Amino acid sequence: VQYPLDHVAVAVEDLEAAVPLYTALTGGAATPRERLPSQGVDVVFVGEGAGRIELIAPVGDDSPVARFLARRGPGLHHLAYRVPDLTATLAELRARGVPLIDETPRLGAHDRLVAFVHPRASGGVLIELVQE
Amino acid sequence: VQYPLDHVAVAVEDLEAAVPLYTALTGGAATPRERLPSQGVDVVFVGEGAGRIELIAPVGDDSPVARFLARRGPGLHHLAYRVPDLTATLAELRARGVPLIDETPRLGAHDRLVAFVHPRASGGVLIELVQE
Repeated sequence: VQYPLDHVAVAVEDLEAAVPLYTALTGGAATPRERLPSQGVDVVFVGEGAGRIELIAPVGDDSPVARFLARRGPGLHHLAYRVPDLTATLAELRARGVPLIDETPRLGAHDRLVAFVHPRASGGVLIELVQE
Repeated sequence: VQYPLDHVAVAVEDLEAAVPLYTALTGGAATPRERLPSQGVDVVFVGEGAGRIELIAPVGDDSPVARFLARRGPGLHHLAYRVPDLTATLAELRARGVPLIDETPRLGAHDRLVAFVHPRASGGVLIELVQE
């Protein structure tokens, strides 16, 4: 089974500047800006299907995304895959000793349940799992 | 028009270690290792369709990917989009003042024509265009 890619997330300093750039680059349309207080970010999705991009910008100075930008600058942030049963996938990963950031699902953009796997599990790549 | 995502590239130190990790994580199968002397890398594709991942590992110490790993460690490296006419797209981008790494198409993995757009053009994200 290959899990489908849901989106590719890009961390940006300035959402207003990034949205027109990415709509032009990818030819996709942008969703309205949505605030995710639990992650301290505003997000906009650009495009549709597996190629769509989630632009994420920090709201304050002390979110994980703000620290990512301070450390590495803007750029690719994480990959998100859709799984049919997130709770079951997390239990399976935990049983295999895969380090998780979120032990249980939490609410992400567009009211979907999400969980992050620790980048140690995947050679430095942050991976988000999204409940279908 | 939304250009389809072709693959997401991940820079790794060690291809032997990364391939089983990514086949397990994504559920996809791996292609045979291919050497791209012009870029100083070995590559393996994992999975199929828009969610597939290109794992890239440097062959020597002085390729762009070796410098990327030295500077930032392993992680997400670039996004690749398929375009119907790469020469036309490059001409159009050049006319719009978009900074390019490759002014003309060159040979990439699986004998496809490719060109890289400078990450300055896209808020820090390295973008590869692949001739369909």
